[in-house]
Amino acid sequence: MSGHLTVVGIGPGPADWVTPAVSIALAEAQDLFGYAPYIDRVGLRPGQIRHASDNGDELARATAALSAAQSGRNVVVVSGGDPGVFAMASAVCEAIDHGPAAWRSLDVRIEPGVTAMLAAAARIGAPLGADFACLSLSDNLKPWVLIENRLRLTSEAGLVIALYNPASKARPDRIGKALNLLARLRGPQTPVIFATAVGRRDERIDVARLGDADPARADMRTLIIVGCEATKVIERPGLPPLVYSERFAREA
Amino acid sequence: MSGHLTVVGIGPGPADWVTPAVSIALAEAQDLFGYAPYIDRVGLRPGQIRHASDNGDELARATAALSAAQSGRNVVVVSGGDPGVFAMASAVCEAIDHGPAAWRSLDVRIEPGVTAMLAAAARIGAPLGADFACLSLSDNLKPWVLIENRLRLTSEAGLVIALYNPASKARPDRIGKALNLLARLRGPQTPVIFATAVGRRDERIDVARLGDADPARADMRTLIIVGCEATKVIERPGLPPLVYSERFAREA
Repeated sequence: MSGHLTVVGIGPGPADWVTPAVSIALAEAQDLFGYAPYIDRVGLRPGQIRHASDNGDELARATAALSAAQSGRNVVVVSGGDPGVFAMASAVCEAIDHGPAAWRSLDVRIEPGVTAMLAAAARIGAPLGADFACLSLSDNLKPWVLIENRLRLTSEAGLVIALYNPASKARPDRIGKALNLLARLRGPQTPVIFATAVGRRDERIDVARLGDADPARADMRTLIIVGCEATKVIERPGLPPLVYSERFAREA
Repeated sequence: MSGHLTVVGIGPGPADWVTPAVSIALAEAQDLFGYAPYIDRVGLRPGQIRHASDNGDELARATAALSAAQSGRNVVVVSGGDPGVFAMASAVCEAIDHGPAAWRSLDVRIEPGVTAMLAAAARIGAPLGADFACLSLSDNLKPWVLIENRLRLTSEAGLVIALYNPASKARPDRIGKALNLLARLRGPQTPVIFATAVGRRDERIDVARLGDADPARADMRTLIIVGCEATKVIERPGLPPLVYSERFAREA
């Protein structure tokens, strides 16, 4: 008897951003693995077993989920947003790559979702409408010099940037350094969007300029989008501004 | 009386990748604007008016949709994938930016969706699991020298790249030039994923290496993902390979 494992993305918040394919996978699961707040958002059906863990130990969680699937269980691993963007799909693949050979025969599926940058962009207009980069500022996954290099090169390339995991308790100064560097590289007038808790009750979205952006505005639930030269802000009377990046690009 | 306009993303193909929020917006629409094949995928309810157009005239389509909303209609603009990624949200914002002042008071919303790169990545593993860039090779929106520059800089930055619109009838040679350049920049062994018609009946997903990738494999429905140094291929007996990008990055 062989089980199977599905990694699902439940989007950034509300139930009406969860795809039907993900809802079906969740309904059919016997065991749900994931970061506790994500599993809490899903809710459990009678008989389903909850394996909630802290944030950060992705590889241990992936290994436990694969072991359960190997033993014949129908396992779902719950990611926020999309599982393929700084979430659980990569950790599950890594665990398979370095795990027992039998795991390579497991039925493993990944169900895509709405990742935070798409939801944040949709709330404010179309800031990702031009070529863009998607970078994580996460503390523990790469050295600062590499992040700085990527901020430089993507600025030179004229790309919009979506910044995931901009702030953490361990290193709150990272986002300040990043915004300072980007202000020098892209100019102080460049629009920057802070999108916190997108789609939730306490959602907050602000548009600033790099020159006067406050790094303290970012917390662990914030997604940041930094514009490029083609990014425009449309002021609207009595409504929040729209921010978009022009589709056409001139020569760099 | 004032209407409103919602730009929705219906995902890359199947109905079970359409979010409930998008389904509700579609059900409530009076007028649907969009590229004909997208509107055909949605299907119309009795009384709904279909405004289908050719691909390519996004700004004209946006203008027509905004005019209808201004006249009091409940308008939905249908995008494939996510509306914010090389799709209609940016064109709608641009039309508002350059249109009559009254359009700035319109109720305009954007509903996110699953964009092609997330669906393609999910089908094959987690190739976007590390920092990545998302670039369009579209013919008419930017000069080739700019695209080449972006391929060089994102390679230097060590980013995975998702390439939208890799091929067109007008300039079929673009993708060949891009893949050649990337093979020189990233090495011939770099994994490259060709994902065509993801989620549809005729879906086809192939993994190749940059050194022997065939540009003719790409057509207008293909999304390409080019790996970085952290991208690994897991061969599996009797199953398609898994491709993923490691979450951890060493110094560049």
